[in-house]
Amino acid sequence: MLQVIELLAVICSAIYGVLLARQHKMDFVGVFSLAFIVAFGGGTLRDLFLDRHPLFWIRASHYPVIVFGMAVAAFFILKVPKNSGRLLDLADALGLGFFSIAGADAALDEGTSWFIAAMLGAVTGTFGGVIGDTICNRIPSLFRPSTPLYATCSFVGSWIFILLSQVPAAKELAAPVAIAMIILFRLLALHRGWKLPALSAESEEVAAEHVE
Amino acid sequence: MLQVIELLAVICSAIYGVLLARQHKMDFVGVFSLAFIVAFGGGTLRDLFLDRHPLFWIRASHYPVIVFGMAVAAFFILKVPKNSGRLLDLADALGLGFFSIAGADAALDEGTSWFIAAMLGAVTGTFGGVIGDTICNRIPSLFRPSTPLYATCSFVGSWIFILLSQVPAAKELAAPVAIAMIILFRLLALHRGWKLPALSAESEEVAAEHVE
Amino acid sequence: MLQVIELLAVICSAIYGVLLARQHKMDFVGVFSLAFIVAFGGGTLRDLFLDRHPLFWIRASHYPVIVFGMAVAAFFILKVPKNSGRLLDLADALGLGFFSIAGADAALDEGTSWFIAAMLGAVTGTFGGVIGDTICNRIPSLFRPSTPLYATCSFVGSWIFILLSQVPAAKELAAPVAIAMIILFRLLALHRGWKLPALSAESEEVAAEHVE
Repeated sequence: MLQVIELLAVICSAIYGVLLARQHKMDFVGVFSLAFIVAFGGGTLRDLFLDRHPLFWIRASHYPVIVFGMAVAAFFILKVPKNSGRLLDLADALGLGFFSIAGADAALDEGTSWFIAAMLGAVTGTFGGVIGDTICNRIPSLFRPSTPLYATCSFVGSWIFILLSQVPAAKELAAPVAIAMIILFRLLALHRGWKLPALSAESEEVAAEHVE
Repeated sequence: MLQVIELLAVICSAIYGVLLARQHKMDFVGVFSLAFIVAFGGGTLRDLFLDRHPLFWIRASHYPVIVFGMAVAAFFILKVPKNSGRLLDLADALGLGFFSIAGADAALDEGTSWFIAAMLGAVTGTFGGVIGDTICNRIPSLFRPSTPLYATCSFVGSWIFILLSQVPAAKELAAPVAIAMIILFRLLALHRGWKLPALSAESEEVAAEHVE
Repeated sequence: MLQVIELLAVICSAIYGVLLARQHKMDFVGVFSLAFIVAFGGGTLRDLFLDRHPLFWIRASHYPVIVFGMAVAAFFILKVPKNSGRLLDLADALGLGFFSIAGADAALDEGTSWFIAAMLGAVTGTFGGVIGDTICNRIPSLFRPSTPLYATCSFVGSWIFILLSQVPAAKELAAPVAIAMIILFRLLALHRGWKLPALSAESEEVAAEHVE
């Protein structure tokens, strides 16, 4: 089960990486490198943090070959549709869902506390995108106020997965349900512009004056 | 002893991270993520470099809960004072002191050479702040000339700790003395503007002409 | 053999780091930190990915002392020549060659697949430079289109090393031949401006219109 989730996570994230690289007009090495980092970054951090060796893309050594093939296909064969923004969002949401649960599941497997497992789910799910943004010289959306919910979807979904996993009757369904909820939650957040509140400069100053 | 130092290091660094995030008007996820990275970044690098597993915040799984609680408190309850620059500097100096010694101590514990232990002290002490700066899109002060001494305080203080640890009579006092010296050294450097010299462009060109 | 290659890799990369830091007018801590990160970044990533402990610069604990000495020499004693661009390129090419093969060799040693070994060669070879660029606030050339071949030299050279290593008669020569080819390939690419093609915005739009 984890195997399938991991494979899907890699494929969706690689699609995201490839599209992002094409948007930035990179050459083939850039396309492959970005796809590789986005697809394997989060899981690598998870494996290093949990001391799982060999790393998942060294153990399943066909993963990098698949990503290489996808980069070749994306670069030399396929035409990228002009308006690839939506496809980018979809691939990102799918990768977020699959990788979050792959992260939380591995953490539970290693016997961490629930809180740590939920956090490692969020780290695994979001790190690829954060690094992709950093490389493309954008402030990661994780640290920008007023962007739609991203890490929150992953964190909440990881909790749902962890709690469902404790219920014997729901154990089998925990992963698919949680993945579906993360993807749906993220797409809805994007579509409807759901955000977390950030205290604005004004409100803070007003608050500070009230205190005085 | 190391436990207490580590806990204090986490708390002070988290305060720094939270204040920095508030300064940048992040939303709650940003505040928590930044506090988490600043508080755990340096120690995680130390643990990965020395192959210490589980990582200190997975082993002591209440640390992330504490940071989460602090982020909640900072975001929803407390008012951040208008002029938080000094508080930021103080929290940073305290985190630097505690984490440097936690890093050097762990390295000695693993039997590294003294030079490596002093370097790992500096890495553990400064990495959280370097990453925090990078995320907030500032060039880390470590790599900017003409900023007050920062890594130097940590490196020198780690050496003091290592040398004092070798003296049987001073062993008990090594950690508190070194921590106090790092904090004092850093605050003095900030206050008095102590800097390392950087060769200016002019002096180099003149020097180059002299050689010719 | 690997020992010698590693030592040469560290020295050449440290020269590159020191020159880069001088170009950016850093103070001594900046010069040492940058030299350290450029010299040890790639190999550290390799060791972490392959779970090789202690890390190569903790095991060979004279390496950091050498880099420290080089930073002192570069900062306080030597004059950096006015036109250090070529020296920078040469040091970078040498570091790329030595570290790529040190990376690929370690990976083969751990029993990874050939594809993974070639990739880890490229990661080990290029990561120091990528991090150096990031710190100096430049987009890493790896992700900029229309820069001369860099990772490609490392990847191709790693393959040459891996294939030659399988031929009993050529085994002894595999490392020196592959290193020489990477360095030559990189310098030629720089000198002649060899690039990978990147699809330009225009050609893509034209292509997209053709599809419609």
